[in-house]
Amino acid sequence: MHDLTRSLHIKNHSKIVMLVADGLGGLPEEPGGLTELETAKTPNLDALAKLGVLGSSIPVKPGITPGSGPGHLALFGYDPLQYVIGRGALEATGIGFELGPNDVAARGNFCSLDASGLISDRRAGRISSEESAPLAIKLRQVKIPGAEVFVEPVKEHRFVVVFRGPGLRGGVHDTDPQAVGVAPLDPRVSAPGSEATSAAAREFIAQARVLLAGEKRANGLTLRGFSPRPALPTFDEVYGLRAAAIAVYPMYKGLARLVGMQLVGKAQTLDEQMSVLESEWKNYDFFFIHFKYTDSTGEDGAFSAKVKRIEELDAVMPRINKLAPTVLIVTGDHSTPARLKTHSWHPVPTLLTSGVCRTDGCEAFGERDCLRGGLGQFEAKYLMPMALANADRLGKYGA
Amino acid sequence: MHDLTRSLHIKNHSKIVMLVADGLGGLPEEPGGLTELETAKTPNLDALAKLGVLGSSIPVKPGITPGSGPGHLALFGYDPLQYVIGRGALEATGIGFELGPNDVAARGNFCSLDASGLISDRRAGRISSEESAPLAIKLRQVKIPGAEVFVEPVKEHRFVVVFRGPGLRGGVHDTDPQAVGVAPLDPRVSAPGSEATSAAAREFIAQARVLLAGEKRANGLTLRGFSPRPALPTFDEVYGLRAAAIAVYPMYKGLARLVGMQLVGKAQTLDEQMSVLESEWKNYDFFFIHFKYTDSTGEDGAFSAKVKRIEELDAVMPRINKLAPTVLIVTGDHSTPARLKTHSWHPVPTLLTSGVCRTDGCEAFGERDCLRGGLGQFEAKYLMPMALANADRLGKYGA
Repeated sequence: MHDLTRSLHIKNHSKIVMLVADGLGGLPEEPGGLTELETAKTPNLDALAKLGVLGSSIPVKPGITPGSGPGHLALFGYDPLQYVIGRGALEATGIGFELGPNDVAARGNFCSLDASGLISDRRAGRISSEESAPLAIKLRQVKIPGAEVFVEPVKEHRFVVVFRGPGLRGGVHDTDPQAVGVAPLDPRVSAPGSEATSAAAREFIAQARVLLAGEKRANGLTLRGFSPRPALPTFDEVYGLRAAAIAVYPMYKGLARLVGMQLVGKAQTLDEQMSVLESEWKNYDFFFIHFKYTDSTGEDGAFSAKVKRIEELDAVMPRINKLAPTVLIVTGDHSTPARLKTHSWHPVPTLLTSGVCRTDGCEAFGERDCLRGGLGQFEAKYLMPMALANADRLGKYGA
Repeated sequence: MHDLTRSLHIKNHSKIVMLVADGLGGLPEEPGGLTELETAKTPNLDALAKLGVLGSSIPVKPGITPGSGPGHLALFGYDPLQYVIGRGALEATGIGFELGPNDVAARGNFCSLDASGLISDRRAGRISSEESAPLAIKLRQVKIPGAEVFVEPVKEHRFVVVFRGPGLRGGVHDTDPQAVGVAPLDPRVSAPGSEATSAAAREFIAQARVLLAGEKRANGLTLRGFSPRPALPTFDEVYGLRAAAIAVYPMYKGLARLVGMQLVGKAQTLDEQMSVLESEWKNYDFFFIHFKYTDSTGEDGAFSAKVKRIEELDAVMPRINKLAPTVLIVTGDHSTPARLKTHSWHPVPTLLTSGVCRTDGCEAFGERDCLRGGLGQFEAKYLMPMALANADRLGKYGA
């Protein structure tokens, strides 16, 4: 698709807003009941549904539950099966570490080693962040010839390590044996050209073991998901769009930055996000607005809290409408039904309005309405071409 | 798909009719209103909709607006992203020039050159066809060693040049610099093996400049879209169908011929097309009938004229019904909403009837009914396999 959009895109003065309610799709509490979105009172979204066109977005493929990375890449029009963000790179992105072209990131776990050096607990007894963060910072003392090393605490037993140096590549095996009673594995080369990364990782582990020697629980570590910054073409290149991201959480800021969006504003609340949208309106063609709480309430299994969050979202729609975007999209990166307390594969309700969309007779924004919508069931990666088409930003294919 | 149809197709005495109303899909004049097709009184098509199965066809991919070439290739079951007809070849096809295996076609534009040989007008002031046609014919005087040259006038400043000779290939750069104040570019080789075409084009341009030297406005020319006859497998080969085309305009006749259809009759009106269908009924398995005026009225922005043209089409349906085709398809190659005055990406209403289709409860032929139809939203390239299946012309895949 990017070959097509790259050759067909046209510049104009249109504005596209993509409002992503993370984990928007849901399930009824009881079979036959209403989902979170269907339960929520959403007069503004329902009014948009009447003017616009609805559909059900399939994030990756039918039956596949996506993580945040593939979910957002798909919404941004990047085939999530073609563009893969390695675990280390995603973890670094998630804590706001901006990976450079000479970086290889790995996800680290503190673990417990017994007297023979065998793993007795793969997560060091799930030690608290308070306990583990100083240890991660201590690991910054590691010095490796020819490479810079960055270590960043994550939550509980997790940390990120980034090796920076010319020619470093990601082809290194995980050292986590995924079992207890065995020693951590050697960071062996898995693809040619990654010898330097393998050597750097081996040296890092050796020095870290010395630094952690006195620890009771977190006296060892494993590394996995060695990966470079993913090579993603930018929004400017593939769509001709100057794109801005208005997100609160580091993961979504990071994902947006990977596709060349500018991070704008320092909003912490949805209202502040709207204010940023208003103040930056003139400066960009495309706005990605990320709303986290439909996902986090879903993950908590809090049906009515998720309903309230959806209503909170509905309440700000007039501020977006007032800006009169050429194309407005409201969707999610995946479903997070409160009943399942986790991401799911269910198609995601999607709403698109523009002056040239073909309305479909739908009257409200909800999962069942979306099934009857004019966008049908579609793979999320096609949403960006639809947005561009509705903004009159794509020329004709062939004569 | 052709690998499948090639190995699975079966011959029988069934008859398939594909009636293509060019640019059939539309948009309401006012949001929430009726489209052209929904507005039209179409009792015959509505009766077929009740008996048949409806769907929405996506010509290329969601959001992509096709030209006539890709739009028809898709309806004929040729993936429009895999089979690309070069601009020169399509232009030649469009004026009814039958390209042979040793031909390379280019689209020509007359342009105006200043005293220094720089382009002052890329379209020679959009000179009239009356003025430019004799100039195109004059260019037939060009003689090139080792190649035949054909020059055909097109509309206004446009013409087609075809180089014919053994080993000629299409890998030559455009000479149109897409700017004024600069000289036309040299027809450089863009792919190995195209040296002879490049040399022929260079020689053509040099001699043409001499022939045009006395002209005021059209004293220069540019060439672009050098391309051979596209290599398309035939309907007979991939579907086992003896196919006939009943079209009025050269472009559609040309496209049909490229996939191995026979052009039958000399119909100029829809009624005459029906008479040709009746008289050729025994001789072919598949009939492509092309109706242009739903597109041209759409391009003119003439909503009610498009409605009338649809009603005109509806009025001839009884003549087709009387022949009792095994499978009857009514669709379009793309949408041309009168409101947009141009081709668009909107899905195309599609109707299929056969004795074995699964009816879907739809009551009328219109865009919104098609959204609820049993064919769902589907890529146009899957329509031919559906036609074959409904004609019992496809065997089982696997045991």
